[in-house]
Amino acid sequence: MTTYYEELHFSSAGENDMKDITDRIQQVITQSQLTEGIACVFVPGSTGSLTTIEFEPGLQKDFPEALNEIAPKNKYYAHHETWHDDNGRSHVKASLMGPSVTIPFHEGKLIHGTWQQIIFIDFDTRPRNRRVIVQLIGEK
Amino acid sequence: MTTYYEELHFSSAGENDMKDITDRIQQVITQSQLTEGIACVFVPGSTGSLTTIEFEPGLQKDFPEALNEIAPKNKYYAHHETWHDDNGRSHVKASLMGPSVTIPFHEGKLIHGTWQQIIFIDFDTRPRNRRVIVQLIGEK
Amino acid sequence: MTTYYEELHFSSAGENDMKDITDRIQQVITQSQLTEGIACVFVPGSTGSLTTIEFEPGLQKDFPEALNEIAPKNKYYAHHETWHDDNGRSHVKASLMGPSVTIPFHEGKLIHGTWQQIIFIDFDTRPRNRRVIVQLIGEK
Repeated sequence: MTTYYEELHFSSAGENDMKDITDRIQQVITQSQLTEGIACVFVPGSTGSLTTIEFEPGLQKDFPEALNEIAPKNKYYAHHETWHDDNGRSHVKASLMGPSVTIPFHEGKLIHGTWQQIIFIDFDTRPRNRRVIVQLIGEK
Repeated sequence: MTTYYEELHFSSAGENDMKDITDRIQQVITQSQLTEGIACVFVPGSTGSLTTIEFEPGLQKDFPEALNEIAPKNKYYAHHETWHDDNGRSHVKASLMGPSVTIPFHEGKLIHGTWQQIIFIDFDTRPRNRRVIVQLIGEK
Repeated sequence: MTTYYEELHFSSAGENDMKDITDRIQQVITQSQLTEGIACVFVPGSTGSLTTIEFEPGLQKDFPEALNEIAPKNKYYAHHETWHDDNGRSHVKASLMGPSVTIPFHEGKLIHGTWQQIIFIDFDTRPRNRRVIVQLIGEK
């Protein structure tokens, strides 16, 4: 039983930009040579989240649209008075969805449905370089 | 320290049908003989989720109703143009809530409140056979 | 590889009161002497949740306000007929957000952004004494 730590680095565009990171998490598992365990995937930062989705163009519109109704752009956010910035809605969406997803792997394969991908979703209001942590716990 | 993998199989009715799987997760822990650790419970598929709730008839109405306001039935979903199906709202709810819940166990018992059950909730628009993964990490 | 179990105890005020528990989780990691692994943080009970947020006064207003629109106070909840209580909205918010957050630690440090704190959020309608479980899995 051991741990295996890796960081994924990529840039994302903000405003609900989604990145499919399924293959990169599988690569970390393969590199680790672990066959049974779990992958804890976590974003350090408070304007992005991780979840799973069927990663196709329709839902790439539908899902952000639903979130934008929960935390609309044209609404007053007290957060803006703290820093004089504009991303109050980004924080609200990220805290609602949470910073992590934990996924089992079995026989060396990350478990997910055929039409289910692991995504990072960037809620910030500008493009950013992002870092996502993958901490595996498992055995060979 | 070891892992213990199990799959739960059941059918669910769709349209926010909830299944209380608390006892089945406890059974997996008991079978594993692990006493300290965590249970990562995960649904492969993008139209169902896992969470905890007080599993009583009132909340079985209240909780789906709140989700139906976030992703209403009578709304346009771009997802329907991809596959010509009707479950855009199912995907939106599932991605919002996430595919997994991770729960500690201690002294051989799954930790949860007296009025807190672990549920699978099926957001799809038709009955389906479901598979839920339980990956334990722990020690005896 | 080992597990390390700890409970945090504190009181919270209800009605979306947030408690920053970042330092207390770090203390558990430090006490455990584990350096690589994950912390599974879980609330037993169905009217509180865990997430991360930039813990500043503005978002302490914005985030609850968004949740209060999802589960408004002045709405009918079938839950109230079961127990003749008043916290249907508390349950809806807690089940939506989920009972746990799982966070990696690396080189002895809990991973989180500079402006990202781990919080417990109390959705109940009255002050309560709360218990939060921290189950670590990791190695020295």
